[in-house]
Amino acid sequence: MPLSAPLTGVVPPVCTPLTPDREVDVPSLRRLVDHLVTAGVDGLFVLGSTSEAAYLTDRQRGLVTETVVSHTAGRLPVLAGVIDMTTPRVLDHVASVTAAGADGIVVTAPFYTRTHPAEIARHFRLVAGRSPVPVIAYDIPSAVHTKLPAGLVLELAADGVLAGLKDSSGDLAGFREVVVGSRGLPGFGALTGSELTVDSALALGADGVVPGLANVDPDGYVRLYRRCRAGDWERARAEQERLCGLFRMTGAGDPARMGASSAALGAFKTALYLRGVIDCPATAEPQVPLSETETECVAKFLAGAGLM
Amino acid sequence: MPLSAPLTGVVPPVCTPLTPDREVDVPSLRRLVDHLVTAGVDGLFVLGSTSEAAYLTDRQRGLVTETVVSHTAGRLPVLAGVIDMTTPRVLDHVASVTAAGADGIVVTAPFYTRTHPAEIARHFRLVAGRSPVPVIAYDIPSAVHTKLPAGLVLELAADGVLAGLKDSSGDLAGFREVVVGSRGLPGFGALTGSELTVDSALALGADGVVPGLANVDPDGYVRLYRRCRAGDWERARAEQERLCGLFRMTGAGDPARMGASSAALGAFKTALYLRGVIDCPATAEPQVPLSETETECVAKFLAGAGLM
Amino acid sequence: MPLSAPLTGVVPPVCTPLTPDREVDVPSLRRLVDHLVTAGVDGLFVLGSTSEAAYLTDRQRGLVTETVVSHTAGRLPVLAGVIDMTTPRVLDHVASVTAAGADGIVVTAPFYTRTHPAEIARHFRLVAGRSPVPVIAYDIPSAVHTKLPAGLVLELAADGVLAGLKDSSGDLAGFREVVVGSRGLPGFGALTGSELTVDSALALGADGVVPGLANVDPDGYVRLYRRCRAGDWERARAEQERLCGLFRMTGAGDPARMGASSAALGAFKTALYLRGVIDCPATAEPQVPLSETETECVAKFLAGAGLM
Amino acid sequence: MPLSAPLTGVVPPVCTPLTPDREVDVPSLRRLVDHLVTAGVDGLFVLGSTSEAAYLTDRQRGLVTETVVSHTAGRLPVLAGVIDMTTPRVLDHVASVTAAGADGIVVTAPFYTRTHPAEIARHFRLVAGRSPVPVIAYDIPSAVHTKLPAGLVLELAADGVLAGLKDSSGDLAGFREVVVGSRGLPGFGALTGSELTVDSALALGADGVVPGLANVDPDGYVRLYRRCRAGDWERARAEQERLCGLFRMTGAGDPARMGASSAALGAFKTALYLRGVIDCPATAEPQVPLSETETECVAKFLAGAGLM
Repeated sequence: MPLSAPLTGVVPPVCTPLTPDREVDVPSLRRLVDHLVTAGVDGLFVLGSTSEAAYLTDRQRGLVTETVVSHTAGRLPVLAGVIDMTTPRVLDHVASVTAAGADGIVVTAPFYTRTHPAEIARHFRLVAGRSPVPVIAYDIPSAVHTKLPAGLVLELAADGVLAGLKDSSGDLAGFREVVVGSRGLPGFGALTGSELTVDSALALGADGVVPGLANVDPDGYVRLYRRCRAGDWERARAEQERLCGLFRMTGAGDPARMGASSAALGAFKTALYLRGVIDCPATAEPQVPLSETETECVAKFLAGAGLM
Repeated sequence: MPLSAPLTGVVPPVCTPLTPDREVDVPSLRRLVDHLVTAGVDGLFVLGSTSEAAYLTDRQRGLVTETVVSHTAGRLPVLAGVIDMTTPRVLDHVASVTAAGADGIVVTAPFYTRTHPAEIARHFRLVAGRSPVPVIAYDIPSAVHTKLPAGLVLELAADGVLAGLKDSSGDLAGFREVVVGSRGLPGFGALTGSELTVDSALALGADGVVPGLANVDPDGYVRLYRRCRAGDWERARAEQERLCGLFRMTGAGDPARMGASSAALGAFKTALYLRGVIDCPATAEPQVPLSETETECVAKFLAGAGLM
Repeated sequence: MPLSAPLTGVVPPVCTPLTPDREVDVPSLRRLVDHLVTAGVDGLFVLGSTSEAAYLTDRQRGLVTETVVSHTAGRLPVLAGVIDMTTPRVLDHVASVTAAGADGIVVTAPFYTRTHPAEIARHFRLVAGRSPVPVIAYDIPSAVHTKLPAGLVLELAADGVLAGLKDSSGDLAGFREVVVGSRGLPGFGALTGSELTVDSALALGADGVVPGLANVDPDGYVRLYRRCRAGDWERARAEQERLCGLFRMTGAGDPARMGASSAALGAFKTALYLRGVIDCPATAEPQVPLSETETECVAKFLAGAGLM
Repeated sequence: MPLSAPLTGVVPPVCTPLTPDREVDVPSLRRLVDHLVTAGVDGLFVLGSTSEAAYLTDRQRGLVTETVVSHTAGRLPVLAGVIDMTTPRVLDHVASVTAAGADGIVVTAPFYTRTHPAEIARHFRLVAGRSPVPVIAYDIPSAVHTKLPAGLVLELAADGVLAGLKDSSGDLAGFREVVVGSRGLPGFGALTGSELTVDSALALGADGVVPGLANVDPDGYVRLYRRCRAGDWERARAEQERLCGLFRMTGAGDPARMGASSAALGAFKTALYLRGVIDCPATAEPQVPLSETETECVAKFLAGAGLM
């Protein structure tokens, strides 16, 4: 299904269910897609940070994209991340995910290498020049250690290089600059990846939202999105605050024992497992799994949110 | 050629010559290997940061390893970097480079993801458990945004997980802690990647050095290494200072126009091109090439060091 | 005037006008206070970052506090920053500003030293234990290089140590956690220092706003605040976007020539000078002044916003 | 005693002993000075980071400088730190410490504010223009979050603004650039603040060393310095390694309970207390004191080094 211009609505970054021996669990992945589609989401984003793309081998990335594309069968657009260090490696992923049917690609700034804004711009231009589908910039400084400047995003948007931005920087003022600055560009969509300020982002003009927590509670985010679109800000805020409470499940994992990725992805997958959507809560190596006590803590958050 | 235990001497991280259209330039790569071997280096390290590993596709990485392994033909050991974000992806590279004949692998901490010391330890243990050749830890916080704690390196060394450390952190005090702490571990080699303090590192007990600048002037680093080993510290310092002067070629590229990787790798490759070792100074995308004026500046540094 | 509990409304961080030889310009400071009070602001905050507190000597700090307290004459509350590295030095400032009549103090985490959350908590508890007036925590990681965790702020609020938070971190999700978590604490006020997302902060429940740009356009921020309080979100957004446009004056100073503090404070003071509120746009040493061209650029932003 | 040109030798940053109620303990401070002078050090540095200058009130700073200057009575030069955020505040400290008799001042880059190299240069030039005694730049990025570029230090040295550098950055390559680049400047002294690589710094040409650990073991550092100057590198290394072992006392404090400043300064003061030099190991607020177990751990390090 070709990308609407611009992409709008709720577009969850889809978790990648794994078997106990860390292979992609295809039946669980299909059930997760159904779980999201049934809730009324507007698109799917595979191979993002929440999908553990950084942990998946190329073979596994291929299997994920093929599974989700074939299972959604054109009912809604599928974006795919092409997360890698630099242009040549990213272009290999572009070829793979578009061959597998992705409707758009999501591209970060280069990482590992010490880069420069001119090189970031060149990177996006080169990738877009070789991509058969629209390119969405992925601003995620916690992972790539560079913030995409709003001015750079707008310049690339005006030149037709970028069809959108997924902003996971947490910098709402910078996001606002992109939203306001791209108003005259009908093909450009500004999406926030910050699950705790979806109402704020939509109020200031965001086109859509890409909340990792929507794996666990897609109905909540669809409801939140619709209330915002209806201008019912009071009830939107109540729903957002409920979801903020639920998000605190990402604090279940002990920070003395594991990193923030293990804790967040472990909580999401544990919740999906407890809700019966996926068969196993395993995260990829070398992440640390949640303990039994931490799993019970996640269960309490689910119960508190009326999800169990 | 199996790794001596521990690896010692001068082990340059080999640049990856590219053609004007950014394909691996195999004849130039062979000439570069000859240039280094003839100078008397003790090992070669392919697919490190200086090799632009972050920019090479998997196919190109394979071609580089095969070319260097077959061209050295066992005359000296070849280490290979397996630079990628997390354990499953690194393990794919381990399979590739060891199939191609690498004698040891060089492994960074996970990156892109937000990690934890326990996960870093797990990562090295898992990789070592699956590698048929010795594992050398690569401490490069400027790229992976995590510093390997000396205590962690020593614990993994004592457990036989690590056969060595390549320290590109610039933190000589931390390196010294590893050097002193690993003295009772005969199989462990401590190598510095800091080209400007090779004499200091050897004076405090380093086993070997991995200087990127040795691509340009391998004779200088071999001479420096031998003077240090002979305890001729005064003449070692003079040679080191000459090499520090030469290293300033990495400042030829204008920082207003390019990042530090473009400037350093561009200068090394331009110098190799000007010295007639490789056919083309191109660096991989999206790096910015040196201008004509900047190239002349590199030429002056070469002339000043008596290398042209 | 004693602090209402909690502080609400628009509370500008008052610029400190200087003479050409960098002495506090008392007549200009009084005119600036009048300019703000006349616009209808709800409180004043002296000796914050926007006030160049980091650049003022103790004598100058005293003069600023005395001037503003005596000139406002109880018409509205005056908060004073007590910015210094650690507890003993902060306590000296507490004694000075409260002797001069400040109604509340604004306290950052320790800086310069390498600190720990337990030490930050201890710092706030010790300062509050010795302060005769309420203590507001100042979260400004760009200056102190530590982010105040929401949980720590809430713990100190619950214990009565803190009467409020001024959040200049730009992290709206963390601010929201404090806003929601402090709802049961009637004496606690959550204020945002982010001038570009005032509408967002108020929509999610902030009590007040502390926008540096309100020096230049206090009427705009008072209007914005009132529209938000009236639930007129559409017109609030329009006003906020107008102010976002005006804020871009902080980009007039060339980043190749000066730091971000010089550019932002220079723009605010130049605008106040051009509007006739203060006599001289000088900033404190070692900041770089705006050039003539950069001053003209600020003038254009003022004209564009209808302020000249 | 006027500064020799340049300053050389061992110049300990003098701890500031405090009474149990956190007042400067003048008799203990005098004993500490005697302890250092007797060991044969070449100068004293008061009001640096190791002196807890960031924690001392202006009154306490004055008392420290006066006590040390009068007690040394010209037997050796006394440097004083003037640590504060920006030029005007630093100039107030310059007036105080020079009135109290300091022979040189030690000045950091501005901090708290977001600064620029041009502003850092301006800062040093303004301070030097108003200081009656020589100015030594203090490079301490862990505290001020800016690294002094070697080129900037050399430019200011060539212009006669700086009489020296105290490098606490841990970047030996950058320090080497200053050492080599300032060889033609007879009045300039390059001092390292890194206590774990004193032999390395002296081997590459440093003029002197400013090791915090020299409070605890001044004889060790004097011995190390003399062996280096005699070219007895083998025995210098043995002494340095013994001191590295002793330095591990700074790890006695539990990092889950306290910051790195509390741990390091707490260990030094505890050791001085256990050695009978000072009367009380208290550190300034809000630092966390060492526990009884942690104190025993420090005692073991002292015993292991033959200091108890």
